[in-house]
Amino acid sequence: MRTHFCGLVDERLIGQTVTLCGWADVARDLGGVCFIDLRDHEGIVQVVAEPSGAEGNADVIAAASKVGYEDCLRITGTVRARHSVNDRIATGKVEVVATKIEVMNKAEPLPFHAHENAGEDIRLKYRYLDLRRPEMQKMMRTRIKLVQSLRRYLDERGFQDIETPILTKATPEGARDFLVPARMHEGEFYALPQSPQLFKQILMMAGFDRYYQIARCFRDEALRADRQLEFTQLDMEFAWVTEREVQDTVEDMIRLVFREVIDVELDAEFPRMTYAEAMRRYGSDKPDLRIAMEFTDVAELVKDCEFKVFTDWANHADGRVVALRAPGGAKFSRKQIDELAAHAAKYGAKGLAWMKVEDATKGRDGINSPIAKFLDDATLDAVLRATHANTGDAIFFGAATYKSASDFMGALRLKLGRDLGLVENAWRPLWVTDFPMFEWDEEAQRFVALHHPFTAPSVDDEADLRANAAIAVSRGYDMVLNGNEIGGGSIRIHRSSMQSAVFDLLGIGKDEAELKFGFLLEALRYGAPPHGGIAFGIDRIAALMAGTESIRDVIPFPKTTGAQCLMTGAPSPIPEAQLAEVHVAVRPREAKVQ
Amino acid sequence: MRTHFCGLVDERLIGQTVTLCGWADVARDLGGVCFIDLRDHEGIVQVVAEPSGAEGNADVIAAASKVGYEDCLRITGTVRARHSVNDRIATGKVEVVATKIEVMNKAEPLPFHAHENAGEDIRLKYRYLDLRRPEMQKMMRTRIKLVQSLRRYLDERGFQDIETPILTKATPEGARDFLVPARMHEGEFYALPQSPQLFKQILMMAGFDRYYQIARCFRDEALRADRQLEFTQLDMEFAWVTEREVQDTVEDMIRLVFREVIDVELDAEFPRMTYAEAMRRYGSDKPDLRIAMEFTDVAELVKDCEFKVFTDWANHADGRVVALRAPGGAKFSRKQIDELAAHAAKYGAKGLAWMKVEDATKGRDGINSPIAKFLDDATLDAVLRATHANTGDAIFFGAATYKSASDFMGALRLKLGRDLGLVENAWRPLWVTDFPMFEWDEEAQRFVALHHPFTAPSVDDEADLRANAAIAVSRGYDMVLNGNEIGGGSIRIHRSSMQSAVFDLLGIGKDEAELKFGFLLEALRYGAPPHGGIAFGIDRIAALMAGTESIRDVIPFPKTTGAQCLMTGAPSPIPEAQLAEVHVAVRPREAKVQ
Repeated sequence: MRTHFCGLVDERLIGQTVTLCGWADVARDLGGVCFIDLRDHEGIVQVVAEPSGAEGNADVIAAASKVGYEDCLRITGTVRARHSVNDRIATGKVEVVATKIEVMNKAEPLPFHAHENAGEDIRLKYRYLDLRRPEMQKMMRTRIKLVQSLRRYLDERGFQDIETPILTKATPEGARDFLVPARMHEGEFYALPQSPQLFKQILMMAGFDRYYQIARCFRDEALRADRQLEFTQLDMEFAWVTEREVQDTVEDMIRLVFREVIDVELDAEFPRMTYAEAMRRYGSDKPDLRIAMEFTDVAELVKDCEFKVFTDWANHADGRVVALRAPGGAKFSRKQIDELAAHAAKYGAKGLAWMKVEDATKGRDGINSPIAKFLDDATLDAVLRATHANTGDAIFFGAATYKSASDFMGALRLKLGRDLGLVENAWRPLWVTDFPMFEWDEEAQRFVALHHPFTAPSVDDEADLRANAAIAVSRGYDMVLNGNEIGGGSIRIHRSSMQSAVFDLLGIGKDEAELKFGFLLEALRYGAPPHGGIAFGIDRIAALMAGTESIRDVIPFPKTTGAQCLMTGAPSPIPEAQLAEVHVAVRPREAKVQ
Repeated sequence: MRTHFCGLVDERLIGQTVTLCGWADVARDLGGVCFIDLRDHEGIVQVVAEPSGAEGNADVIAAASKVGYEDCLRITGTVRARHSVNDRIATGKVEVVATKIEVMNKAEPLPFHAHENAGEDIRLKYRYLDLRRPEMQKMMRTRIKLVQSLRRYLDERGFQDIETPILTKATPEGARDFLVPARMHEGEFYALPQSPQLFKQILMMAGFDRYYQIARCFRDEALRADRQLEFTQLDMEFAWVTEREVQDTVEDMIRLVFREVIDVELDAEFPRMTYAEAMRRYGSDKPDLRIAMEFTDVAELVKDCEFKVFTDWANHADGRVVALRAPGGAKFSRKQIDELAAHAAKYGAKGLAWMKVEDATKGRDGINSPIAKFLDDATLDAVLRATHANTGDAIFFGAATYKSASDFMGALRLKLGRDLGLVENAWRPLWVTDFPMFEWDEEAQRFVALHHPFTAPSVDDEADLRANAAIAVSRGYDMVLNGNEIGGGSIRIHRSSMQSAVFDLLGIGKDEAELKFGFLLEALRYGAPPHGGIAFGIDRIAALMAGTESIRDVIPFPKTTGAQCLMTGAPSPIPEAQLAEVHVAVRPREAKVQ
């Protein structure tokens, strides 16, 4: 149907006849000479219909003059050098003089124009028009190349690409399951997998040794900008493995794909940090290392001062008083500081103490701060020295529980980094390790798993774990890149007795464990090997590589934050008869369970 | 954790110390010397624990003597040449003399033994044990290699691997949809895709040019031996393409994967056959060409005979009288012929006339047949000549509507081929083309689509199609291999007016079309390019390659014909509160819609 791609017509074809297929990106009639920018997936080439020369040109000009935006065309013509070279396109040195123009499909007037900045809703409704834009094509191709590169790496190293079921068993642990009524089993339901976690562990017990899958996962959670109802992860599992072997393999893989896909060379060895260190220095388990700012713990310095918020938390067993120096922050206006305080408040701050260092040589007189009066000279001086504060800096203080102070000061750090232009233009990966095994849920008065309930503790002995549950460390690890957790994994529990002990500590009783995870406990009894793995968020990595904030830009048919597909109109009402076939009814409002 | 794989230990390692991880396939204590067959995914190696020599051997023998089936072990030892070579295993020239045996995980007594012929239900319940068997590992690897080989082919040729949604819109056309209640949209539902058909067409309209996906598809149909609730297809679509270009590309691809995966060289050019020819010669739209037997139409010969069933159908406008010569069939007993008749009856035969040619030289006297008396000598002779019947053959006759006679005689042909040992040991691919556009559904008194409603007719003009709908031919094509439809596709409709005309002919009214397929009709109005594609059944191709009858052997976690996963126990009941969250209730029996 065509001899060449539009975007690949070049000087080597000058004098030749080509047939091209594509869309009219732009069409202009300049007094008898028509220009069409013909676009396909490879790019754009200029087509000219002009009156001079060969026979039949009247037809060609007539056809060309009627071409509108996005008409689908097939054009035959001769390639010639262009008088005025267009450097902005790859084909800019040539043009095609049309001898035949076929309209394969006329386009109706467009709901939005590719070159204007249309709203996301209309772009999602007419997704096929939006995806034709070269920017979108490029972002999608980044994702496609990422997946291709990952697969090649893993195939070459003997990982087996194995499919696991989408219609599986509900396991109400973690996020909400999507449910699918079973027609052949009245009153029963399948669930869509939140991840292939248990299946990949079972595969290791089934002797597959090295597994991977580009796996679709489903979580029925409220949608945020960076979440979708369904998402894609690179899911991996290794038998007979230690955490370091998993980490080294995937670190090497990630380095390779960044090189192959976007020509970026990541660190030859990723820095490593324990969870405790990450929280202490950055107030986050996924620190953005592009921002150099670090916390300074000042509880020891302020524990006897006159500022009650500081002394309360400095003397509290689980308290933290943390200072964060913001280089250049002394220029913040009162309004800006109020905005920063509001930002910290969103992350749990009850207030935000601050100090501007207007002149570091003048001691107390060089300081502008509502709290300076509560600090004696020695304390003030100690704080300034501890934070390495200089003229022009600001210092922000958080005082609360360890967790809360870390959280809101960590969030403040990110905002300060952006606001002050202190985010390095770089790629900063790291490993975070040694996560706590459990977190104590005050409300439920029980432990919850920080990773998931199948993560192995660092101790091998159940009695040891039970005795030290509150401080137990897991064999989990996260790969973090520029403040994003792009991968997370762990060594798994491979003995039935340890798995039972962990379920028990998590308040999952014997009966409940049997009902939900019976097949796992059983499988662990038949010679399960030591195993571990990791999963990477493909949507997020693709978005990072494509340089976009929104994962919707790298998902061909995403849903809105309202969980809808604006193009197809999903979800939609279903006729009663069809619901009856699968034995369900829409629940009447009055029959809601509270 | 290990230095080598069990299955790869060979003579080059003699004298070296190795550490191996695996399962105890067999363990034998032969009076103080213990033998363990240690198995991993690469194979089996013999480990010996013997009293002679180095220190610490008492511990090793004690450990070895306690090893049971499927214990998970880590063994260090020295490789040495074996006295008596075992030719049946790749490592048969060596053995490993153990110096250390660690039990990583003791296995409880097994529910079934890998070496016995256990029932499928228990194998599915303990799938991880079943999958450890080398036969199963090998079949799964065939599938993995197939998918890898397909991907490599397509990646190299610029096809884009693009993911389409799993949570999408219900389109009740074809099979039953699986439904997923939407939590954020009370009373509404997503559906799981029966195939990515509309999304891949939209991708062509979105400018992606060449698409593929190893796609999960879902059909809520009664399960047969070769169907699963969810199945995997290689889904492909091409823009700006003719059917021949699609066919040539994928034919080349299939040849390559058969060569790469199972070292089979398929025909350099696949034979091609129209639907009409396939029905005429083989009574099937997916003829198994490994069986040479062909139909002979004999309506013309018997239209004036005395056998009313023959004359009725021979003179019927839509009738068919077909003869099938079964070489060597004269040896069939009456009981065997009754069985053949019963088989044909399952496929719609009201009766099965037959004729044994006991001696072809004796004319009527050499014939054993209940119907011979109804045929005069000339007719009998004509039938024998037309079918090329020889001594020792049988001839079977089907008389019914064209469709019905073709169906049951086609089914009979397959059974005769198997029963008479006439199935060639070969790979016989072919293309079937020129399918009817529509079939008339007598019950519904309307046309139904033979492929799907997006398949283009061979005519370009809507008026032409409407005028000749009953005899219209589509641009669909199937790839058939040894009697299996392994791939099916078509050139699609790319103009909105033609799509509307086809919906109309299928009895899908304007409102219904708008409701279900509005986004497609709309997309077709904005410059949709000509496009077409195909989809291949991965499960079926993998089963053919692995040499198994059941696709469950090439699916890691299949469901039973009862739509259950015996390992996890899916589907399962769901607590009321969880159902309430997604606004559904299990429908009370009395509230069923009829």
